[in-house]
Amino acid sequence: MTGWVVIAGLGPGRETLVTPEVRDALAEATDVVGYIPYVARIAPREGLVLHASDNRVELDRSRHALEMAAEGKRVVVVSSGDPGVFAMAAAVFEALEAGPEAWRALEIRVLPGITAMLAAAAAAGAPLGHDFCAINLSDNLKPWALIEKRLRLAAEADFAMAFYNPRSKSRPEGFARTLEILTETCRDARPVLFARAVSTPEQALRIVPLPDCTPDMADMRTMVIVGNSATRVIDTPRGPILYTPRSA
Amino acid sequence: MTGWVVIAGLGPGRETLVTPEVRDALAEATDVVGYIPYVARIAPREGLVLHASDNRVELDRSRHALEMAAEGKRVVVVSSGDPGVFAMAAAVFEALEAGPEAWRALEIRVLPGITAMLAAAAAAGAPLGHDFCAINLSDNLKPWALIEKRLRLAAEADFAMAFYNPRSKSRPEGFARTLEILTETCRDARPVLFARAVSTPEQALRIVPLPDCTPDMADMRTMVIVGNSATRVIDTPRGPILYTPRSA
Repeated sequence: MTGWVVIAGLGPGRETLVTPEVRDALAEATDVVGYIPYVARIAPREGLVLHASDNRVELDRSRHALEMAAEGKRVVVVSSGDPGVFAMAAAVFEALEAGPEAWRALEIRVLPGITAMLAAAAAAGAPLGHDFCAINLSDNLKPWALIEKRLRLAAEADFAMAFYNPRSKSRPEGFARTLEILTETCRDARPVLFARAVSTPEQALRIVPLPDCTPDMADMRTMVIVGNSATRVIDTPRGPILYTPRSA
Repeated sequence: MTGWVVIAGLGPGRETLVTPEVRDALAEATDVVGYIPYVARIAPREGLVLHASDNRVELDRSRHALEMAAEGKRVVVVSSGDPGVFAMAAAVFEALEAGPEAWRALEIRVLPGITAMLAAAAAAGAPLGHDFCAINLSDNLKPWALIEKRLRLAAEADFAMAFYNPRSKSRPEGFARTLEILTETCRDARPVLFARAVSTPEQALRIVPLPDCTPDMADMRTMVIVGNSATRVIDTPRGPILYTPRSA
């Protein structure tokens, strides 16, 4: 049996956002590895072993996946959203690069998924309709000074901004600081989208002018999208639509 | 009959990347509108009218979709990739905002898709594994000076960068200028991915150190991804893997 590793994106939650090629890979797998809540989305079946692990053990999980593939297993590493955006793909390649030479002969494929910012943007309208950036606000793996530098330059460049991992209980001050920096650099009332649990039954959207944003509006299940200087809100009887014109 | 507009992303080409919810919307539609090559991807069936139009008529197409929905039709506006990323969603909302008040009562939904940069990144590894930006290099709708400003600030912020619409026959000089600016600001040999016709049978990937990049390496079917200063290549018997570590 020839083993392989597929690093697959399950999308942000709604099952109708999972691509057929990800479904096909899961149907062929012998083993699935991933963070507990993502592995919980995989239907158990005979012949499939589910290996759920805790957060912050991405490298251990990656090595485990590569070891199993080297033994001939067909392994799917599941990520929420897209595996290449602040998710498992980079971790697997870090483990591959540091691991035994033999691992490099393995078949490793990345299957893209709908990343949270695209689902959040779609649910609210089209706030990423022009040039934008995506920033991971977690400082677990990089210094906060680098995040702050990127925020200032992104505001100066007038990018719309999508923030992943905006706020956790262990470091609530990062997002508060982010809002201070944006208020100071943007100097306007551009709309900010807080999209919580996007594409799940608990989805909740909120559009707030930048000066009125407060840190408690985001938690780790919230995707935050800050408009650029031209981002607009259209009021409709069905609710507000947030979008960034193509000329911005 | 109650009309609606769904703005749907077909992904970059491979049919197994089309989400089930987009398939479902197409199955319920009475009318499909879009740019000729995207409408060509929709299987004809009885009861479905296909309205293919040329490039650069996005606003006309959007108004047509909204008019038909107001008449009770179920209209899918098709985009390649994700409709919210340099595609039709922003155009439909521009038309909505400028159009008759009655249009605002229409049901309008955006269904996300796999945008080209995610498919290109997945095909090459995980070059967007950390903070990144997406820039449309076309100056059809914005001044070139704004593009140049964003390129310089993105390089200073050390974002990985994904470029949409890098080069067309009518303005070949933009991408040449982009490479000059990046060489001047990045001052290193970071890898650049040229991903042509990604996820189609003609897919061709090429990874080139920044100083060796030339304008002819990209055309309008090419997605260009420039790594950040930490982006790396792993050599394997199956070919190079491009990725950006999570700490970058």
